[in-house]
Amino acid sequence: MGGNSFGTLFTATTFGESHGPALGCVVDGCPAGVPLGIEDISRELRRRRPGGGGAATTRVEADEPELLSGVFAGKTLGTPIAIMVRNTAQRSGDYDALQDVYRPGHADWTWEAKYGIRDHRGGGRSSGRETLGRVAAGAVAKAFIREYGMVIQAWTSAAAGVDVPGPEDPGFNLDVAEENPLRIPHRGYAEAIMEKIEKLRLEGDSAGGRVSCSVTGVPPGLGEPVFGKLDARLAAAMLSLGAAKAVEFGAGFDAAYEQGSVHNDQPIPAQDEIICQLPPDVPALQFKTNNAGGMLGGISTGMPLEFKVAFKPVPSIAKPQQTLDRNGSIRELVIRGRHDVCILGRAVPVVEAMTALVLADLLLLNRCAR
Amino acid sequence: MGGNSFGTLFTATTFGESHGPALGCVVDGCPAGVPLGIEDISRELRRRRPGGGGAATTRVEADEPELLSGVFAGKTLGTPIAIMVRNTAQRSGDYDALQDVYRPGHADWTWEAKYGIRDHRGGGRSSGRETLGRVAAGAVAKAFIREYGMVIQAWTSAAAGVDVPGPEDPGFNLDVAEENPLRIPHRGYAEAIMEKIEKLRLEGDSAGGRVSCSVTGVPPGLGEPVFGKLDARLAAAMLSLGAAKAVEFGAGFDAAYEQGSVHNDQPIPAQDEIICQLPPDVPALQFKTNNAGGMLGGISTGMPLEFKVAFKPVPSIAKPQQTLDRNGSIRELVIRGRHDVCILGRAVPVVEAMTALVLADLLLLNRCAR
Amino acid sequence: MGGNSFGTLFTATTFGESHGPALGCVVDGCPAGVPLGIEDISRELRRRRPGGGGAATTRVEADEPELLSGVFAGKTLGTPIAIMVRNTAQRSGDYDALQDVYRPGHADWTWEAKYGIRDHRGGGRSSGRETLGRVAAGAVAKAFIREYGMVIQAWTSAAAGVDVPGPEDPGFNLDVAEENPLRIPHRGYAEAIMEKIEKLRLEGDSAGGRVSCSVTGVPPGLGEPVFGKLDARLAAAMLSLGAAKAVEFGAGFDAAYEQGSVHNDQPIPAQDEIICQLPPDVPALQFKTNNAGGMLGGISTGMPLEFKVAFKPVPSIAKPQQTLDRNGSIRELVIRGRHDVCILGRAVPVVEAMTALVLADLLLLNRCAR
Amino acid sequence: MGGNSFGTLFTATTFGESHGPALGCVVDGCPAGVPLGIEDISRELRRRRPGGGGAATTRVEADEPELLSGVFAGKTLGTPIAIMVRNTAQRSGDYDALQDVYRPGHADWTWEAKYGIRDHRGGGRSSGRETLGRVAAGAVAKAFIREYGMVIQAWTSAAAGVDVPGPEDPGFNLDVAEENPLRIPHRGYAEAIMEKIEKLRLEGDSAGGRVSCSVTGVPPGLGEPVFGKLDARLAAAMLSLGAAKAVEFGAGFDAAYEQGSVHNDQPIPAQDEIICQLPPDVPALQFKTNNAGGMLGGISTGMPLEFKVAFKPVPSIAKPQQTLDRNGSIRELVIRGRHDVCILGRAVPVVEAMTALVLADLLLLNRCAR
Repeated sequence: MGGNSFGTLFTATTFGESHGPALGCVVDGCPAGVPLGIEDISRELRRRRPGGGGAATTRVEADEPELLSGVFAGKTLGTPIAIMVRNTAQRSGDYDALQDVYRPGHADWTWEAKYGIRDHRGGGRSSGRETLGRVAAGAVAKAFIREYGMVIQAWTSAAAGVDVPGPEDPGFNLDVAEENPLRIPHRGYAEAIMEKIEKLRLEGDSAGGRVSCSVTGVPPGLGEPVFGKLDARLAAAMLSLGAAKAVEFGAGFDAAYEQGSVHNDQPIPAQDEIICQLPPDVPALQFKTNNAGGMLGGISTGMPLEFKVAFKPVPSIAKPQQTLDRNGSIRELVIRGRHDVCILGRAVPVVEAMTALVLADLLLLNRCAR
Repeated sequence: MGGNSFGTLFTATTFGESHGPALGCVVDGCPAGVPLGIEDISRELRRRRPGGGGAATTRVEADEPELLSGVFAGKTLGTPIAIMVRNTAQRSGDYDALQDVYRPGHADWTWEAKYGIRDHRGGGRSSGRETLGRVAAGAVAKAFIREYGMVIQAWTSAAAGVDVPGPEDPGFNLDVAEENPLRIPHRGYAEAIMEKIEKLRLEGDSAGGRVSCSVTGVPPGLGEPVFGKLDARLAAAMLSLGAAKAVEFGAGFDAAYEQGSVHNDQPIPAQDEIICQLPPDVPALQFKTNNAGGMLGGISTGMPLEFKVAFKPVPSIAKPQQTLDRNGSIRELVIRGRHDVCILGRAVPVVEAMTALVLADLLLLNRCAR
Repeated sequence: MGGNSFGTLFTATTFGESHGPALGCVVDGCPAGVPLGIEDISRELRRRRPGGGGAATTRVEADEPELLSGVFAGKTLGTPIAIMVRNTAQRSGDYDALQDVYRPGHADWTWEAKYGIRDHRGGGRSSGRETLGRVAAGAVAKAFIREYGMVIQAWTSAAAGVDVPGPEDPGFNLDVAEENPLRIPHRGYAEAIMEKIEKLRLEGDSAGGRVSCSVTGVPPGLGEPVFGKLDARLAAAMLSLGAAKAVEFGAGFDAAYEQGSVHNDQPIPAQDEIICQLPPDVPALQFKTNNAGGMLGGISTGMPLEFKVAFKPVPSIAKPQQTLDRNGSIRELVIRGRHDVCILGRAVPVVEAMTALVLADLLLLNRCAR
Repeated sequence: MGGNSFGTLFTATTFGESHGPALGCVVDGCPAGVPLGIEDISRELRRRRPGGGGAATTRVEADEPELLSGVFAGKTLGTPIAIMVRNTAQRSGDYDALQDVYRPGHADWTWEAKYGIRDHRGGGRSSGRETLGRVAAGAVAKAFIREYGMVIQAWTSAAAGVDVPGPEDPGFNLDVAEENPLRIPHRGYAEAIMEKIEKLRLEGDSAGGRVSCSVTGVPPGLGEPVFGKLDARLAAAMLSLGAAKAVEFGAGFDAAYEQGSVHNDQPIPAQDEIICQLPPDVPALQFKTNNAGGMLGGISTGMPLEFKVAFKPVPSIAKPQQTLDRNGSIRELVIRGRHDVCILGRAVPVVEAMTALVLADLLLLNRCAR
C-alpha cells in the first residue's frame, strides 16, 4: 500500500498539495449503511480552519467539501467515499522567493533529496494543509464509530511554554476549549497563553505545545498483536503528523521511573455498564486506576484511552534565519506571508481524526478475532 | 496483512508462544545476495538472553536459532528466510496457578476478552519471549543495512528512577553498556542502578526505564510521506513492544515548550562525507544542531536518528497484589517463578532490531521514489 | 488495503458510482519526475468512450478528466495523483423501474446480499462505467512504463461468435483496430461482425467476445514469486473486470493437451537487443518459441507477454426475461434504455490499463530483488 | 506485503526451498477457537505426496508436519500458526550437472535474471515442492471454512490429451478420484490415461492436463469489489501455481461466443436451504442455471463455485533437448533423476488448498461489509 494510505480495512488515502487544484481523500472499507451527510464532514473541516485571533494564519479558505461517491440516500454504500475540497485562496506568488532556498525546520530539502522535485508553493504536500484530507476521512470514521458509542475528545494541554491543568482541575472545561482558537479547556489559561502568543507574533517567533486526547466508550478487545497493537497504531497515526515529535500513553515517560507495585492498575469488578460482547466465561471487569492509558498488551481494556502528543513550534518565523540555498550558499532568510504562530488549536481536530481512523479500523479487524 | 507481520517490502512475520514448541520468524523481501550466516542471528539472540546478575530472569534458554530457508552458499536467495528457535526450558507448571487469575499489568484479561481463549503458560504470545522472533528478523535487517553503512546503537538511559548521563558526559561509554546486564553506558551509574534493582528484588518489586537509540550513516531520503514517515514507522515499531509506553524523537516532549527560533536546526554546508546519491541539482548539506532527531517532514536528513523509548516497570512482582479471577471474584495474588526485575538491558537489542526492520524497509521503498 | 485499491507500490484506488456525482482514481506510488499531462489521460478516456456504431451504448458523456494533484510543471511529484471525471449525462429516471427487480446476469442481488443496500441507478459501482477510474489510473501507469520502452497493445480477437485471425494472418492490422468501434484488427472481419451485432440489436440480444493482449519491451525479471507472479497479477487484474470469465497465458488451455517436448520453449542466444540490466554472469538469451507467453516461473522472460481474456455477453438485453423482484415474486423484465450490445471494443483500453498497472507495480517491486 | 504472503486477513506466508533444510508456512489471522490438530494437516500433505504408479516422481518424502505455534488444547489461539516440514530425502547430487545449464520450461534463467543467484538444487523455490507450504496453510483454511459448511472438491478433468466426462456422466465418481494417482473421477478413463502416461514415460516425454474445482455451501456475499472480487482472487491463486497457464469460471471461454439471452442465469425462488444471513428485506433466491460459475459482479451467489485450471506438461523430460548454458553456449540436455510425467493428481489438493485460502480470507472480509 502506498505511503498516502492509512489502515488495513477501514482505509483512508489522502491527496493534494497546498497550492494545487484540490485536496481530499478516498475512504475505502467503511461498512455499508452508516448514516453520513456532507454536514458531518463540513463540521470537522470548519473546526480545522484558522480560528481567527492571534494564533492562526490569516489565509482564509472556505474549505467546502464535496462528496463525490460512496453515499446514497444518506447512507454509505460500502463503496469508496471520495471527498474533495478545492483550493481557492492560494497566493502562490508569496512563495516564489522561497523557490530556491531551504527553510529551516521545513521539509524543503528532504523532499528534494528524496524525490528530486518539489512543489515549493506552500510546502506542497508537506504543508499543514495536507491534514485537510485526514480530517475529512476522520469525519467518516467518526460517523462510523459513533454508532458504537465511542466519543473522542482532544484539547490543548500545553502551549507557548505553559502547561494547562487537566480534568482534575475545577477550571477544566472542554466546552471552553471549542470557544477559543487554541482549544484550551480553561478560560484563565486560554487568555494568558493567547497573550504570550501575541507577544511571540510581535517578536516574529512561534510556539509549540501538546495535545491531550481521551476516548470513552472503547470496547475491550481493540488492537491486533503483535505489530498492530492499539498503541502502535495510534503512535504511527500521531507521528505521521508533520509537527509531532513525541507521543505517550497513560503514565507515558513517567512510567519509566515507576515501580511495578505503583504502576500496575488493579482489576476490580465492573462498576459501569460496558458496551461490548465479551466471550462466554470471561467476566466483565475494569481497573481502579488507568496508568495503562486504556490498553494492556496493545489491546483496549474498556477504560478510557489516554494519550498525549507533543508538537514542535511552527518552523515559519518572521525573525531572520540563516540557511542555505539551492547552490549550497549561505543565505539570510526572512519569511513573509500568512503563518500560524501556534497550530495547537488546529491540531486538535486532526488528532481526533487520526484517532477515529485508527479506532474504526481496529473495530473492523476485531470482528475477525474469533 | 496480519497483525504479526511488519513492513511493506522488507517484511517480518513472527510466530510462537512463550511455552509452545518454538518461536521464530519469516523474513520476506530481503534482497538477494546479502551475506548472512547463522552467527549473525545467534549473536543478536545472545544479546537478548538474560544477562545474569540481579536484573534478569533466571530462566535460561539456549536459544540456538536454526536457519530453515532463504540462504544458500552464505548469501540470501531473495526467498523467505525462516528462522526457528525451539523452546526447551519451559516449566509450564509454574503457571498452572495463574490459569484462572488475571495478573495486574499483564494482558491476560484483554487477550481473553478479544480471543475468548488464552495460552496461560508464561503469557503465551503476550510474553516478552515473543521478541525473540523480532530479534532474529532484526538480525537479518541489520545484515542488510550494514551494507549501506548504517550503524544502530541503543542503550539504557534511565532505569529504576535514575537518569544516566548522555554522550556529552565524559563517563559515557557504549562499550561499557555491553558489559553490564542493564546495558548502562556508564560504569558508576551501572553499579548504582544494579544496587537499586537488587533492593527492589528483595522488596518483591520491579523497575521501569528508558532506552535511547542513535543511528548513524542514515542516507537522506528515508521515509514515505505522509503515513509512512520515518518517525511514524519507528513510533509504531517501538510501541508494538509490550512494555513500551512512550517514544520521542530529537527534542521530543521538550519541543512542545520551545520557540521556533530555538528549535529550528540551521542548515549548513555538508562537513562530513555523506554516503548517498542526491538527485542532480540538490546540494549536500547538514545541520548545525539536531533538535529534529534526524528527520524533517518524516524523511531522514542524513543527521543521526535520535529517539528515546519509555518502558513501564515489569508487571510480575512478588509483592502481594489484589486482582480478579475468572469468576470475577477478588483474589490476592503472589507471583512466583523466574521474572526480570527490570528488562531494560534486554530491551536494548529489541529496540535495535525493530529499528533495523524499519530502516531496511524504508531503504527499499526509497528505491522507488524517483 | 481496501477492495478498491490495486497494487503494492504503484497503487490505484478507484471511486465512483455510475450515476453519482463523479468517478475517478488516486494513483499513489508513481515515482517523481515522470512527464505527465492531462492529455495523456484524456486520450485513454476517449478510447474508452462509446465509439458510435451499432455496438455501443448511446449514452454520451464528455468524460473530461481533471487532474487534482500530484503533478507540477508537467512532471509527477511523487505524491498521490488524483483524477476526477464528473458524471453529466445521467438519466437516472431510466432506472427507477429497475429499483425493485434483480436483473439477470447483473450483480443487483449479490450486492444487496452483501451490503444490504444498493445504488440501483445504472448498477452503481458494478456498472461498466466503474472502469473509467481504471483507465485514468492506467494512463498514468502507461506514462511511467513508456519510459522503459514497454508497449501494450490489445485488440478484439473474437466477438459475436466469430474468431478473428491473429498476427500470422496477412489481413491483421492493429491500425485498423483503432478505426472501428469493436477494435477488430481486420477490415473484413470487422464489417462482418458489425453486421452480426446489428442483427443481435434488432433481436434484442447481446454478444460476448475475447480480447487478446501483447506487450513488447518487457524486461526480464518482472514478477514476484510465489504469490505475486506476473501471471497471477495479470490474472487478478483481468478477472477483476466485471464481464471477464477467463484468462489464458501463452498456449493457455491448449497447454493442458500438449506434451513437454512440444510445449517447452527452446532457449537460444539473444538475437534482438534487450533493454535490461542483467546481473553479472547471467547471459542474455531469448526463446525460439513463446508457448510460455513471456513468463517462466511467474517471472518475465523478455519475450512478448501474450494473453487472452474472455468476456461474457452484455447482460442487459431488450428481450423479455424472467426474474425475481425484491418480494421474491417472479416478474417478466424488459430492459429499456441505452445499452451496449457488445462491449469488446471498449474493453480493449481497459485491458490495456490494467496491464499497465500490473507492469508499473512489478517494475518498481523488481528494483528491490537484489 | 512480500511476494510470499497471500491474503488480506487470513494470510499465509510460505517458505522453503526444494532441497533446503525445511519448508512450511505461517498462517496469520485465523480466528481463535477453530478446532485444529496435526492430523488435519498431515492428511492433506499425504494427498499431495507422490501417489505411486507411473505418473509420479519416485522421490519419497515422509513429509511429516510439525505444528510450532498457534494451537493450544486443540484449538487455534488467534496467533500465528507455524507449520514446518523437514526435507529428508534430498539427493542434491542429482542436480549438480544442472548447475550451469538453463532447463527449458523451467524458471532457472528467469530467477537468475531477477535475483542474480539461484539455488539450483531441485529448482530451489521454483520447485513444485514449494506447494507443500500452501497445502499445509490450506489445511488450516479448510478447518476454518468447514465450520461454515463449505466443501471444496477438485479433480482431474483432462490429462495426456484426454478429456474426462464431467458430473453429468453416469461413470463420474469423486470417490474414484481419490483411489488413483491422477485423481481422475472415472474408472475407465483413469485406466486409459494411466496407460498413455506410461507410454509417455517410456518415450521420455510428459503430459499436461486440467483440474476442475467445485465448492458447495458458499454463502452469498463473498468477494470484495472491485479488485478483490471472488474470481479475481481465485484467478490470482490459481495462476500463482507454477505450471498453471489458464483459468476459467463457469462458462469461461465459451461465454465469449454466447448471447446474453442464453448466458444469463435466471433467478428463481430459493429451493434449497441456504446457510447464510441475508440482510433484512433481501429475499433468498437461487439460479436456474450456473453459467456464471457461482458469482455475479465478483460476489458469490450461493450457487456452487465452478472453475477450471489448465496445467502445462511437466518441463523436465528425459528426451534430449537443446538449450543454453551459463556461458551462453548451446548445449544438449538430458534430464535424469526422479520426475513426474504428469502432476495433475498432485495438483488437485493444491488447487483445493489455494481455494480454501481464498474463501477463508473472503469470509473474514465479508464480516466487515455492513
